[in-house]
Amino acid sequence: MNNTFGYHAGLTIFGESHGKAIGAVLDGLPAGISIDWDAVRQEMARRAPGRNAMSTARQEADAFEIESGYFNDHTTGTPLCVLIRNNDQHSRDYDQLRHMMRPGHADYSGKVRYDGYNDYRGGGHFSGRITAPLVFAGAIASQILARESICIGAHILRIGQVADRHFAPCGESPSLFQQLKQQTLPVLDGTKAALMEQEILTAKSQLDSVGGLIEGQILGLPAGLGDPFFDSVESRLSHMFFSIPAVKGVAFGDGFDMASHHGSEINDSFYYDGTVVRTRTNHNGGINGGITNGMPVNFHLVIKPTASISKEQDTIDTDTQADCKLVIKGRHDPCIVQRAVPVVEAATAWTILDIFLGSRKTGGAHD
Amino acid sequence: MNNTFGYHAGLTIFGESHGKAIGAVLDGLPAGISIDWDAVRQEMARRAPGRNAMSTARQEADAFEIESGYFNDHTTGTPLCVLIRNNDQHSRDYDQLRHMMRPGHADYSGKVRYDGYNDYRGGGHFSGRITAPLVFAGAIASQILARESICIGAHILRIGQVADRHFAPCGESPSLFQQLKQQTLPVLDGTKAALMEQEILTAKSQLDSVGGLIEGQILGLPAGLGDPFFDSVESRLSHMFFSIPAVKGVAFGDGFDMASHHGSEINDSFYYDGTVVRTRTNHNGGINGGITNGMPVNFHLVIKPTASISKEQDTIDTDTQADCKLVIKGRHDPCIVQRAVPVVEAATAWTILDIFLGSRKTGGAHD
Amino acid sequence: MNNTFGYHAGLTIFGESHGKAIGAVLDGLPAGISIDWDAVRQEMARRAPGRNAMSTARQEADAFEIESGYFNDHTTGTPLCVLIRNNDQHSRDYDQLRHMMRPGHADYSGKVRYDGYNDYRGGGHFSGRITAPLVFAGAIASQILARESICIGAHILRIGQVADRHFAPCGESPSLFQQLKQQTLPVLDGTKAALMEQEILTAKSQLDSVGGLIEGQILGLPAGLGDPFFDSVESRLSHMFFSIPAVKGVAFGDGFDMASHHGSEINDSFYYDGTVVRTRTNHNGGINGGITNGMPVNFHLVIKPTASISKEQDTIDTDTQADCKLVIKGRHDPCIVQRAVPVVEAATAWTILDIFLGSRKTGGAHD
Amino acid sequence: MNNTFGYHAGLTIFGESHGKAIGAVLDGLPAGISIDWDAVRQEMARRAPGRNAMSTARQEADAFEIESGYFNDHTTGTPLCVLIRNNDQHSRDYDQLRHMMRPGHADYSGKVRYDGYNDYRGGGHFSGRITAPLVFAGAIASQILARESICIGAHILRIGQVADRHFAPCGESPSLFQQLKQQTLPVLDGTKAALMEQEILTAKSQLDSVGGLIEGQILGLPAGLGDPFFDSVESRLSHMFFSIPAVKGVAFGDGFDMASHHGSEINDSFYYDGTVVRTRTNHNGGINGGITNGMPVNFHLVIKPTASISKEQDTIDTDTQADCKLVIKGRHDPCIVQRAVPVVEAATAWTILDIFLGSRKTGGAHD
Repeated sequence: MNNTFGYHAGLTIFGESHGKAIGAVLDGLPAGISIDWDAVRQEMARRAPGRNAMSTARQEADAFEIESGYFNDHTTGTPLCVLIRNNDQHSRDYDQLRHMMRPGHADYSGKVRYDGYNDYRGGGHFSGRITAPLVFAGAIASQILARESICIGAHILRIGQVADRHFAPCGESPSLFQQLKQQTLPVLDGTKAALMEQEILTAKSQLDSVGGLIEGQILGLPAGLGDPFFDSVESRLSHMFFSIPAVKGVAFGDGFDMASHHGSEINDSFYYDGTVVRTRTNHNGGINGGITNGMPVNFHLVIKPTASISKEQDTIDTDTQADCKLVIKGRHDPCIVQRAVPVVEAATAWTILDIFLGSRKTGGAHD
Repeated sequence: MNNTFGYHAGLTIFGESHGKAIGAVLDGLPAGISIDWDAVRQEMARRAPGRNAMSTARQEADAFEIESGYFNDHTTGTPLCVLIRNNDQHSRDYDQLRHMMRPGHADYSGKVRYDGYNDYRGGGHFSGRITAPLVFAGAIASQILARESICIGAHILRIGQVADRHFAPCGESPSLFQQLKQQTLPVLDGTKAALMEQEILTAKSQLDSVGGLIEGQILGLPAGLGDPFFDSVESRLSHMFFSIPAVKGVAFGDGFDMASHHGSEINDSFYYDGTVVRTRTNHNGGINGGITNGMPVNFHLVIKPTASISKEQDTIDTDTQADCKLVIKGRHDPCIVQRAVPVVEAATAWTILDIFLGSRKTGGAHD
Repeated sequence: MNNTFGYHAGLTIFGESHGKAIGAVLDGLPAGISIDWDAVRQEMARRAPGRNAMSTARQEADAFEIESGYFNDHTTGTPLCVLIRNNDQHSRDYDQLRHMMRPGHADYSGKVRYDGYNDYRGGGHFSGRITAPLVFAGAIASQILARESICIGAHILRIGQVADRHFAPCGESPSLFQQLKQQTLPVLDGTKAALMEQEILTAKSQLDSVGGLIEGQILGLPAGLGDPFFDSVESRLSHMFFSIPAVKGVAFGDGFDMASHHGSEINDSFYYDGTVVRTRTNHNGGINGGITNGMPVNFHLVIKPTASISKEQDTIDTDTQADCKLVIKGRHDPCIVQRAVPVVEAATAWTILDIFLGSRKTGGAHD
Repeated sequence: MNNTFGYHAGLTIFGESHGKAIGAVLDGLPAGISIDWDAVRQEMARRAPGRNAMSTARQEADAFEIESGYFNDHTTGTPLCVLIRNNDQHSRDYDQLRHMMRPGHADYSGKVRYDGYNDYRGGGHFSGRITAPLVFAGAIASQILARESICIGAHILRIGQVADRHFAPCGESPSLFQQLKQQTLPVLDGTKAALMEQEILTAKSQLDSVGGLIEGQILGLPAGLGDPFFDSVESRLSHMFFSIPAVKGVAFGDGFDMASHHGSEINDSFYYDGTVVRTRTNHNGGINGGITNGMPVNFHLVIKPTASISKEQDTIDTDTQADCKLVIKGRHDPCIVQRAVPVVEAATAWTILDIFLGSRKTGGAHD
């Protein structure tokens, strides 16, 4: 199913940006989990729009309502449905999108895909708004993974010309991840936040937008998760990441830098740290042959500059079948990178939960 | 199923590097396809080992035997099983791998994953040799896609310090793709082949290995293929690519370069070329919102330097639970990039066939 | 995913009998379908409780709210989410069910399955109430199938000792199916309705319940749908039917009667009716080798007597870990067969829609 | 994928009756299982043709070759591929089947399904011969389940007019199941074997065939396996059973008899047998709400009379598009019921293994 992700923990999302509501069905959650709803709300708030000058002016509290799957303060083990109402739509801003195709957006490809019947208002089902239920699901997955001492962190690695430093490849501390969650622009080098903000506001002042990089790290994963074909940990994570709007590249460990290096520079030597097996370096990002090796899993991905810009652009009008000029009305983000950070964390959490739950079925059968 | 890929065209692969045979089951192929077996053999030969000094000395003809699914010179529509016998194994070379974990390889992660019961000889099921059935499947998928005027090409974009030029983003010619298939080191700038060979042989002489980049392009894809969540075209392709051994990063269009650009530089303007919709640039690699827009789909991925190197390395001995020195015996490739090119083409072909077959079920239902 | 059914048309259901709401997400619906909502409401009403003395006294309008996937009076092709609020719960009636296990119900097996965290009120996610979203989905599927001249009918074949006659194996008329939808107890032999009602009211007066049979027929299916392994049309339909509460047996064509017959009595001879291929008899229920042969698909299934009866029963108390006597409070149906008829029709419609959408991907590829 | 069954233990089958070979890929087997190959061969022999006058004269040793997934006398945890060569084909007998459609067979429906390209010889992929790899897979699954004290038995409940007695609903002994495996016609009432043989030989002498019933029982299943929607244990088992050629009906517990009974007669009272929960009766066949309750799972299914009979039959010739008379040449079974018994056991074993492996992922997560 296109809108369902996961073999063991199944996440089904629905909704359009300007529809009645968006939401998700979480299937396969373990029974008996008591959820910290405040923590879920905090994650939702990190992604929510309208918080500052770097984000769209659309105001959405992203308040959610649990319809099923939670009883007597615990998960039931049956599907948990969450509904998030849309409130602050300005649909009139989007009338022209029915026939004027925004460059870089799914207006045209979506129109062809759905024979012209898709909801074009605010991008409809293609809208970044649909990531709200994903953040909800990821926040719950994170709480389940935390019981297994698995935790996930992410930060902005770059916005435009401003780069942050990398996570320590062999592992940061969970407490650092908590601090990052508090930052409007989560970075490791505090001096970079103001510079990144400047990049964003400059792009905004130019009626333009700017892209960036997000780096993530997963701590506490046991060795032996994943499969060689066709469900490597990289395959599963990238599958999920590339369904996040604006992601155009995903890499693990040293990623593309490996192209210009030698094996002796990339191979991570194993050693016994007491009885625990570790590697002295982590160029491979904690994954060998698609399977975790017990080291932190490191990845980074690129978020393209927001396609919605106020500058006049050339495009087509599908009504007149003629070329035309477009000035996009409506409210949009000059940079989506900072709001994408909690989305990437959530996407990671759900995928890892699915892999983790699946892993329980193997082993333990030998003579 | 971990070893089955595809919703409509299901590819199941099996086998270990030093086992009796490797192979695949191709399920969901359309009935009535007459296959050009010579063309399939040519693709297999491009990947086959032992062809020159840049490749492992292992000699495998990769002759295949069709067990089912092909009758009266046409596909039956029922599962097509292919078997490829292993011949030139030197398993004794690999005895030490049972307990000495090669850095950068799946020896350790695989040992944990399979509780120590996996076939460690030559990497077992993790071996690059398992890509032979993938090339077979891709060669058949390519022939089916060719009937729909969809064709796929790839070249080496970089080996070590030597870079080739990029494909023209708005589309190369199918004939160029055919020429590339004839080259030992497929490149666009012919002057680079010799330099790349030098990079490889230098690494080899240093008992080391070197990595690289592969760029691919898909021509003739109709607009409207793919889905926003969770099966974007990028999601499906990256899922497959990251199951190819040594792939550590995947990007579409301008990929990671987008991080330091503005929306006005990345958005691709639409225009009518007669009645056909095209974009003047193709920074987004032919995909908007996870769905094809009718332009060529462009991607590139990184192949890490071969993990097997002859240099002495530090690692662990799981028998003694002690650190040790390892010198890898056996035959290996100083660079796997050139042999990975047909694998990437095949992986692309099978994934696109699956997406294409699935797309037939939509549309045509409206009032 | 356990709560998602379908490869091409994916139905995900959620909710508990006494939770806030129940509902479904319909994924993969063709875009551009204009839905007749009155027809959907009529189907919902057929299943709804509290309509007469033969049904539970629980009053539920089963009004539904569309949250997504429907725009400008057409399906968008993206997920359609429907929500049905629960209103008339008497949860206090069910307090004892937390620890007193109703015989014939899922109270005990569900408690073990979900480690005691499942919502036990009114059967929770196991409740027949969860079939309301299924009827909703089936009503939409039926409208899509009607465009392809595929229609589905069902009637009560037996309640207790009272049997109706069978559908004509080679096909009834669609208009008959419409008439059946109007009947409280849909039967072919009108004289049997009153007798069946008597069976039900007698069982009720005895604080007991009674079971029955439902027979269904699918008209207009083209030949060539389905697959030999493992997705025969019988496999797909039975998979769905056995997820309907109280179904304990499913058969196609002559079903179990075939055990005592000879091949010459069961084989259906083919003939050309003009150019159309038909069979003179239809003992095989329109399916040969798991694939439709163009004749009507006939099936019947058994609905066990409602497990909830008012008679005192022996059972266990999981709190005291002791045997005990149970008298079930709350409102229940003395017979569920008549309310199951629209559920079986809906289950058939969704499954056939999924098979039908999938079938579009084959053929048309030959030389 | 149509030819792959299972979420956790994936079985992919391939091959045609008169092709080069048939076989299967078993994916997801736990690593470290040492297989008793003689026991596997014995199961294969029970199904193999040509053993006596009641079976087809086709001689097939059904010798198998393991291509992958088994190393150092243990499963590796990676895909196990088995190949079974076809030897004794008389394909000439089947030339007429290309255009003369056998009543009751998939010749016509399959021809439409695969646009006329399917291998028609001996039924091709529709042949009962394709159940040989299923028996192989089931034999391995049985050995894994035996470690969990889960065992499966089956017997002939009826052939034509001759009925055997039922299994004791609350459980037979595993040793009885072993005895049944030794019998040519496995029955509980020894006096019935000769009478059943007479039914078969009489049908054969009349150039006809006869059907029957098979009853199965699963011992040792823990309570709590399965799911309410859409993967009830009945749903999973029936899905598999209905892909076995000739199965036209499947029922659990009292099955269709429930239609004419009252709830008080069908509900199974729970009691504590020491601390173990059991039911005093087992009308529900060990499944409540789609989930096992810890009692034996009982089911029965109908095998239709073999469609291949020597009597002259009316059918169509798709070459001439005219009606014609058909006398089937080739070798066939006057009754397939006895050979289907090990197939049903195998189908049960693989399905239960899949459910069992999947169940490991739930629970254990609560506070």
